[in-house]
Amino acid sequence: MEGLAQSGWAEREALEAARGLLFDWDGCVAVNNRILPSAARLIARHLERVAVITNNSTHLREDFVRILERNGLEIPEERIFTAGIEALHRVRDSGCTRVLMLSSTAMRRHALDLGIPLVREEPDLVLLMRDPRFTYAKLERAANALRDGARLVVANADRAHPGVGGRLVPETGALLAALLSCAGEYAPAPEMIGKPGPILFDRACKHLGIGPAEAVMIGDNPETDGEGALQFGIRPILIGGNSRLRMDDLLEPLAAE
Amino acid sequence: MEGLAQSGWAEREALEAARGLLFDWDGCVAVNNRILPSAARLIARHLERVAVITNNSTHLREDFVRILERNGLEIPEERIFTAGIEALHRVRDSGCTRVLMLSSTAMRRHALDLGIPLVREEPDLVLLMRDPRFTYAKLERAANALRDGARLVVANADRAHPGVGGRLVPETGALLAALLSCAGEYAPAPEMIGKPGPILFDRACKHLGIGPAEAVMIGDNPETDGEGALQFGIRPILIGGNSRLRMDDLLEPLAAE
Repeated sequence: MEGLAQSGWAEREALEAARGLLFDWDGCVAVNNRILPSAARLIARHLERVAVITNNSTHLREDFVRILERNGLEIPEERIFTAGIEALHRVRDSGCTRVLMLSSTAMRRHALDLGIPLVREEPDLVLLMRDPRFTYAKLERAANALRDGARLVVANADRAHPGVGGRLVPETGALLAALLSCAGEYAPAPEMIGKPGPILFDRACKHLGIGPAEAVMIGDNPETDGEGALQFGIRPILIGGNSRLRMDDLLEPLAAE
Repeated sequence: MEGLAQSGWAEREALEAARGLLFDWDGCVAVNNRILPSAARLIARHLERVAVITNNSTHLREDFVRILERNGLEIPEERIFTAGIEALHRVRDSGCTRVLMLSSTAMRRHALDLGIPLVREEPDLVLLMRDPRFTYAKLERAANALRDGARLVVANADRAHPGVGGRLVPETGALLAALLSCAGEYAPAPEMIGKPGPILFDRACKHLGIGPAEAVMIGDNPETDGEGALQFGIRPILIGGNSRLRMDDLLEPLAAE
């Protein structure tokens, strides 16, 4: 136990010194969109410095705000950065006029609100998110759109996220694997929005008015949160999984050492 | 043209000498299950020596017999070998008592006829074929079955086959890519039935009562038909695609050289 406490000391120091705390969502702040008690306590303590950056591509920012509020945590919508919403903004600004979108119904509705021109046939851009209504027919349409030269924007590359009882919840990356496999040689290089890419890290830091060196990234995924943050110059703090560190360790007071 | 004719000479000689002619189906004998005229002529000429071996996993053998009959070609059901049907036989004989099957409706019905115990939850075996009704929910069920230790039998690894106008038709391999991606570290090594594996080649040769060296494999896919046949000791004759050879070249009389 002493070893564990010691290993968390450097991380707690970094956390106290940081001007911005970026939190991942699934597996870190919440499981199945239920906030974990230790995450709630840590966020409450540092509320003013917190932003959420998540590869989620099925929910609106207001959904996250509501879930946080239920736990007494008031974080404005502008401090929630999701791969799905960033992808929509990217596509809206792309100039593409015919977009085939594979996504949840909520995201589809939001795309229409943003004025994104959604079509079923002859798209010039395919936008792929986690799509709980993914079908063989959609796969076929999207693969043939790529064959015919459409661009490909992908919200995130995660293959699964943990659900209730550790159950695998298929993610965008698993659907992407089917699409790239089917399109084969015709598949263009996908434009990836989520972590480990820089877009979400950059947006969050800019909004908080800080540089990467002034932020820490708290997450559970070594590739997306860990490598992604490092590549952007942010110090990652990995919890759970293969890391010995747990969220509770970050709650210990520095003085207790 | 002389060069083309010359390049076909060795293949025609091999074809005449062979005791068994194994034909691939999609892209070789038929496109979208319509028989190509040159294939019909070649099969008619060698009818007694012909077997069809195909990675198709959505149709019954009687479907192929009917399609051939419409073109005046009588080939008994026993000389049609499909990855889907072989996969069903494999699963029926596996001793598994709870099978989650992702397939076409026709294949599902045939599985029930064979007495295969199909379930939706807690399977001990996942059987994956080309499933035109593939959904996100099926992907989730199958991935979690693998996570919980189920075996995985896959009809074929093809990622797409050519449809009308060269349109991509998603194949079992594209669905497999999603499943393996989602299951990640939990995915077992799949038991592959179709070409390039030996099972279909072996079944066809045994039925014709010949050894591999006495057969030729006529197909369009360098990996499945070409490499698969070579590995089994069968001489492949590749037509279309990157091959300079076309089916018409195989119809030229040897004496014309």
